[in-house]
Amino acid sequence: MGEFKNVTAVKKANVYFDGKVTSRTIIFEDGERKTLGIMLPGDYEFGTGDKEVMEILGGAMDVKLPGSDKFDTYKEGDTFIVPANSKFSLIVKEVADYCCSYIKE
Amino acid sequence: MGEFKNVTAVKKANVYFDGKVTSRTIIFEDGERKTLGIMLPGDYEFGTGDKEVMEILGGAMDVKLPGSDKFDTYKEGDTFIVPANSKFSLIVKEVADYCCSYIKE
Repeated sequence: MGEFKNVTAVKKANVYFDGKVTSRTIIFEDGERKTLGIMLPGDYEFGTGDKEVMEILGGAMDVKLPGSDKFDTYKEGDTFIVPANSKFSLIVKEVADYCCSYIKE
Repeated sequence: MGEFKNVTAVKKANVYFDGKVTSRTIIFEDGERKTLGIMLPGDYEFGTGDKEVMEILGGAMDVKLPGSDKFDTYKEGDTFIVPANSKFSLIVKEVADYCCSYIKE
């Protein structure tokens, strides 16, 4: 699980929040798309298009999922799912490394 | 030149300077290794092992190469080369996106 083989890596980064959140897009042979990203400490709100599966690769983040009224902490090895076409809030207290998978429904 | 095909992408990020400099490692079929990275504003010094070819994909950085006594600005589309086993200094004033190639000599 430490690497993705036979993939296409998009050179240019995706940059959000003045570079405090950045990611690289990885495309698989079957067309599936993931991003490998970094979040620096800060408070963020994101909107989803496709459903997202977020795997924490390093660090930690506090997440308020759609329909929840509280933040839960996710750390290295944890995963959370965000429904399609929704919004979620994040509080990042230490540098977080993540892998986001986009799921067509 | 917008993407690298048939590569292996290492999941975990390389994190330096409290996350102000991060990169992802991409490995090619012939074993060549590149990193795709982001530098947030700051002053940095790096040491090389292998010779490095640095291509600026976005933003800009001021670079003082080994043997030089001044900083030169490199911006999107520019490339500079750092000799093996040397040190170079960077002043980053805006978020910089880069691709670094490691050249075995």
